[in-house]
Amino acid sequence: MIKLFHSNWIIREEWFELLKRVPNEELLRNRIGGQGSILNTIFHILDVEYSWICGIQGKPEVQVRFENYNTLEQLKTLSDSWMQEIKLFLETWSDDFENDIVTVPWSEERYTEGEILLHIIAHEIHHMGQLSIWAREMGIQPVSANVIGRGLFVV
Amino acid sequence: MIKLFHSNWIIREEWFELLKRVPNEELLRNRIGGQGSILNTIFHILDVEYSWICGIQGKPEVQVRFENYNTLEQLKTLSDSWMQEIKLFLETWSDDFENDIVTVPWSEERYTEGEILLHIIAHEIHHMGQLSIWAREMGIQPVSANVIGRGLFVV
Repeated sequence: MIKLFHSNWIIREEWFELLKRVPNEELLRNRIGGQGSILNTIFHILDVEYSWICGIQGKPEVQVRFENYNTLEQLKTLSDSWMQEIKLFLETWSDDFENDIVTVPWSEERYTEGEILLHIIAHEIHHMGQLSIWAREMGIQPVSANVIGRGLFVV
Repeated sequence: MIKLFHSNWIIREEWFELLKRVPNEELLRNRIGGQGSILNTIFHILDVEYSWICGIQGKPEVQVRFENYNTLEQLKTLSDSWMQEIKLFLETWSDDFENDIVTVPWSEERYTEGEILLHIIAHEIHHMGQLSIWAREMGIQPVSANVIGRGLFVV
């Protein structure tokens, strides 16, 4: 399962690289679906991932505002910073924790830790699928969504 | 990991249900990205999943043509039929097979079985993300992509 985090992050880096060639106003343009723009959707991916990982760890909720991260560079910096912390957490992960129950500040529900990790993974892939449509609309070949062929598995 | 197959299939059923209200010509309309139309993208999801599952099992490749499955009802029938077979296979799955190496008829590469299963899962989520954009374009609220809150986990 942790492999899917790695594959998501590799794909995310490729999106950051690809979108460098796109003017910021195009990245902020209102679009149908997702979080309404390319940058806002990337911000949402980062925010959801980090919030849940903090939630699992019982850390307080961090409130960030898109207005402070509305360029590709700022989002990349935010992503790098949070990813460092998330990597450290995932290094301590063991499947034994999968059924451990947690609650998070923004919900009354009880969740298993495994459920939350799967949710984070699927959430990013879902929104990256939306980016791929918007890339095509801009005439850009999107980043491949393939998990295979990325050297993540020893064969 | 197998939980993500279940969540994908629940979400897929919800898409089949939601899209019943959409005229077939709208489902076949050319769109930017994905496989070029809603039905063709769903067909592609089914085809990729089934092909890889057959590949893992060393079963011969099954060639199907979109032209024979270009209505929602036909795709639902195809999905139901293949899903039965895939469920049987996944019931025999154990994490011990994760690093077993397989080859498939359409590639020279060697893959691990775990890698293939993760690829299938991510592939469907990615394309469902695309459907969500197209649904919004038609003025329809898309199916939720959430893995949590679907009763898949015992808490």
